[in-house]
Amino acid sequence: MTEGRRALVVGGGDVSTRRVRALLEGRAVVILVSPDATPELAERAAAGQIAWRRGRWRESDLEGIDLVLAAVDQRDVSVAICEASRARRIPVHVADDPPLCDFYFAATLRDGPIQVAISTGGAGPALAGRLRDRIRSALPPGAGRAVERFGRLRAAVREAMPRDDQSKARMRWLTAYGRGAEWSDLEALDDDRIAALAREAARASAEQGLA
Amino acid sequence: MTEGRRALVVGGGDVSTRRVRALLEGRAVVILVSPDATPELAERAAAGQIAWRRGRWRESDLEGIDLVLAAVDQRDVSVAICEASRARRIPVHVADDPPLCDFYFAATLRDGPIQVAISTGGAGPALAGRLRDRIRSALPPGAGRAVERFGRLRAAVREAMPRDDQSKARMRWLTAYGRGAEWSDLEALDDDRIAALAREAARASAEQGLA
Repeated sequence: MTEGRRALVVGGGDVSTRRVRALLEGRAVVILVSPDATPELAERAAAGQIAWRRGRWRESDLEGIDLVLAAVDQRDVSVAICEASRARRIPVHVADDPPLCDFYFAATLRDGPIQVAISTGGAGPALAGRLRDRIRSALPPGAGRAVERFGRLRAAVREAMPRDDQSKARMRWLTAYGRGAEWSDLEALDDDRIAALAREAARASAEQGLA
Repeated sequence: MTEGRRALVVGGGDVSTRRVRALLEGRAVVILVSPDATPELAERAAAGQIAWRRGRWRESDLEGIDLVLAAVDQRDVSVAICEASRARRIPVHVADDPPLCDFYFAATLRDGPIQVAISTGGAGPALAGRLRDRIRSALPPGAGRAVERFGRLRAAVREAMPRDDQSKARMRWLTAYGRGAEWSDLEALDDDRIAALAREAARASAEQGLA
């Protein structure tokens, strides 16, 4: 959910470096405010991947910002950032200080279009990482590709049944198919088979008088 | 991340009813705009759980809103809602129309403070639900309680090592402990044991000259 969102990162240390990495992965627009920065952050700024205003945080840094991440070593500064952000209804996260957080970073894993986020509600990243490892092992092999193919099928069914009054019939067919299919069969769907299935969906729904 | 956020829901049908249920679970503030509503939505409005403006969507509904969910049957209305929201940088989701979505609803599961969100990037809810069932089985028994106890430990360690310059030492100790402990041991931590562990953490860090 950070794609295209403007994230203000206050502080240029190791924690901020990890946050910036995650934000860039999530395709956020990153603005760093800090008097100094780790070599990685300085390089990213030099390469134009992030904007870096060298200096201490000030309230005007919040203008046009969609979320705020603070990782500074002085608690009074953290509190000021948190209060100013909340006053503007901008979600804020202060590192290592759950009461000053409106959201927490989740441990995440990806497989193609599948994204799993594991949050422990601020209890700390160590356990979230262990849960992630368990969850990774629980996903069916090829799940990412299977979901990608199913997304193509969904788009094809939409094309085959495009009318507003067909939306319920589309959803009903897709849900039934998605629940019943084997993961390995979904993974094996090629474009021809997807086109054939979409035609079948439209015909079956019409015959049942659903659309 | 919806806690306390103002969510505008446009449309009063079955999809909106499910969305509102999820938003209220996430403790969002829900504003419904629709000429009509399902009995469940009407009851929630009557009970004061949500605000309901009876009428068609208009652009001024977006004022003060943090996220927008549209589930209406006319695509031209969906497109108008999406465009107006994006112009104001408000994240928007249009049901069953991935190109009009800035975010997707994830299948979620909870166990105490643990929250897992499974997104399929708009490929559809059927597969997300199947993945959720697998993930639920992969979590260790008592994981929710274990994480809750670990959160208490984290707070106790913070109290035992409160200074700004101890934050690295805190994190180091907690990460090592969190990685090494058995789930069943974490689950069994009582408040006395937590207090003893926090003292031990402060002593060990001081002895190692870490803080």
